[in-house]
Amino acid sequence: MAKPDGPVVREEVWRLARGALSREEAHVIVEEPLQIVVDGVPYAALMRTPGADLELAAGFCLAEGLIEGPQELGSIQHCELEAADQVAVTRSGRRAAEAIARPARLTSGTSCGLCGRELVEDVFRRTEPITRACRIPLASLLSWGERLRDAQRYFGPTGGTHAAALFGEEGELLAAAEDVGRHNALDKAIGRLLLADRLGEACAAMLSGRVSFEMVQKAARAGIPVVAGLSAPTHLAIQLARRIGLTLAGFVRQDSLTVYTDAGRITDLPHIAQAG
Amino acid sequence: MAKPDGPVVREEVWRLARGALSREEAHVIVEEPLQIVVDGVPYAALMRTPGADLELAAGFCLAEGLIEGPQELGSIQHCELEAADQVAVTRSGRRAAEAIARPARLTSGTSCGLCGRELVEDVFRRTEPITRACRIPLASLLSWGERLRDAQRYFGPTGGTHAAALFGEEGELLAAAEDVGRHNALDKAIGRLLLADRLGEACAAMLSGRVSFEMVQKAARAGIPVVAGLSAPTHLAIQLARRIGLTLAGFVRQDSLTVYTDAGRITDLPHIAQAG
Repeated sequence: MAKPDGPVVREEVWRLARGALSREEAHVIVEEPLQIVVDGVPYAALMRTPGADLELAAGFCLAEGLIEGPQELGSIQHCELEAADQVAVTRSGRRAAEAIARPARLTSGTSCGLCGRELVEDVFRRTEPITRACRIPLASLLSWGERLRDAQRYFGPTGGTHAAALFGEEGELLAAAEDVGRHNALDKAIGRLLLADRLGEACAAMLSGRVSFEMVQKAARAGIPVVAGLSAPTHLAIQLARRIGLTLAGFVRQDSLTVYTDAGRITDLPHIAQAG
Repeated sequence: MAKPDGPVVREEVWRLARGALSREEAHVIVEEPLQIVVDGVPYAALMRTPGADLELAAGFCLAEGLIEGPQELGSIQHCELEAADQVAVTRSGRRAAEAIARPARLTSGTSCGLCGRELVEDVFRRTEPITRACRIPLASLLSWGERLRDAQRYFGPTGGTHAAALFGEEGELLAAAEDVGRHNALDKAIGRLLLADRLGEACAAMLSGRVSFEMVQKAARAGIPVVAGLSAPTHLAIQLARRIGLTLAGFVRQDSLTVYTDAGRITDLPHIAQAG
């Protein structure tokens, strides 16, 4: 799998707008792992958009308490190792002598001994192809954004929640959940069906936020064949969806959407508009 | 520090709308740690909105590959331990005999031996009070949303990025960054000033997304006294900001905003409208 060069790539998509379907080229934001190595110790692998990697590593080290300021930064270097992006940070002064402990913490950075790209490749290899068929009428899919919003109890008063909803093959709402974190919202919705042993009924997940790599990974682990979002998917999410045969749609509105992979599961699509 | 009871709390805020300032009660979404213990091993502490905790833990265990389905779930229990929320999961069948390895992974869950609430209390204790004064004219603050958007190169074409910008005391843009992750965008902007040894000039961070606990923590580590967002802050973010004397504003538009803590740093605020 080729690593994209730069922060934006182009993808061929199906776009539905004003009742017409067309084949278009869309710009998609890149999501790729960056490994941060501190004083020779692999400290974290962050999923990020390439660019300003030295700045990201420096800011991350400050946030993690690994350095207190620029005076404790000995060197900071971008390395290309076997197609993996890496920033190697060394610390100076008394910090250089301090052992790197990977502290108990709540941040979203993740410690690992592997480089980030190897972990991503591993997810690609291990994630099973989607076998559940499911057919989703277009009209049903276009209604999900509104139904997701209707299911949110806390977004109205607080403006602070993400949401996820799971739908069955007849377009019925099976589970919905809200959380400050979009990952948690999807885990809660999937967990609800899992605890009821009804996960096999889930055909689709509708998400209030961006569709990143991990969101597709979560849906795939639950065997859910369709993922739709109000917002954009990342390039890595599209790549994983394509690899495992998962239908991925973004920018879902009442009358428009973009389909990135496997449009075949969506029925009643209009005929394709001729270009030009 | 009292743990909130339920997913939404009320906070006294200053709200600016239609040129008038008023003292109001706002609903704020709760963000609290949940510790997930698998077969007796503390596996992760997630920052989440309380509610559906069993579902969250079940969905998280599926996503992490700790279980393949409900048949491998032995028991799942909510525990209250010293004011900390915890879900204890035990696995059944062959899984019960498998050692819990905390695998190298890219997810945002974080492994730790402490309970989540202890980690949060630790951050509260260790985070230094903000000492930089900084005065921000209201008109400057209200312009930051537009200036943040202007600084985004990739949001327009892709719709898939968050952004962070840092401003100086004269309202000058010091650094801006974009990323698929909102944490990364702030780390990149802070890292840019850190590498230039100009972090001391930063008065304020403007964020495109929600202002969660970790975003305030990152700004505090960089000594930045004002954090403003286009969207909502969480309750834990407000609590941390209040504790360290950081000014926190949300829902920043061209003519309106909500101030959650330390409005004193914002100058030229209109007189307070009388209630009723």
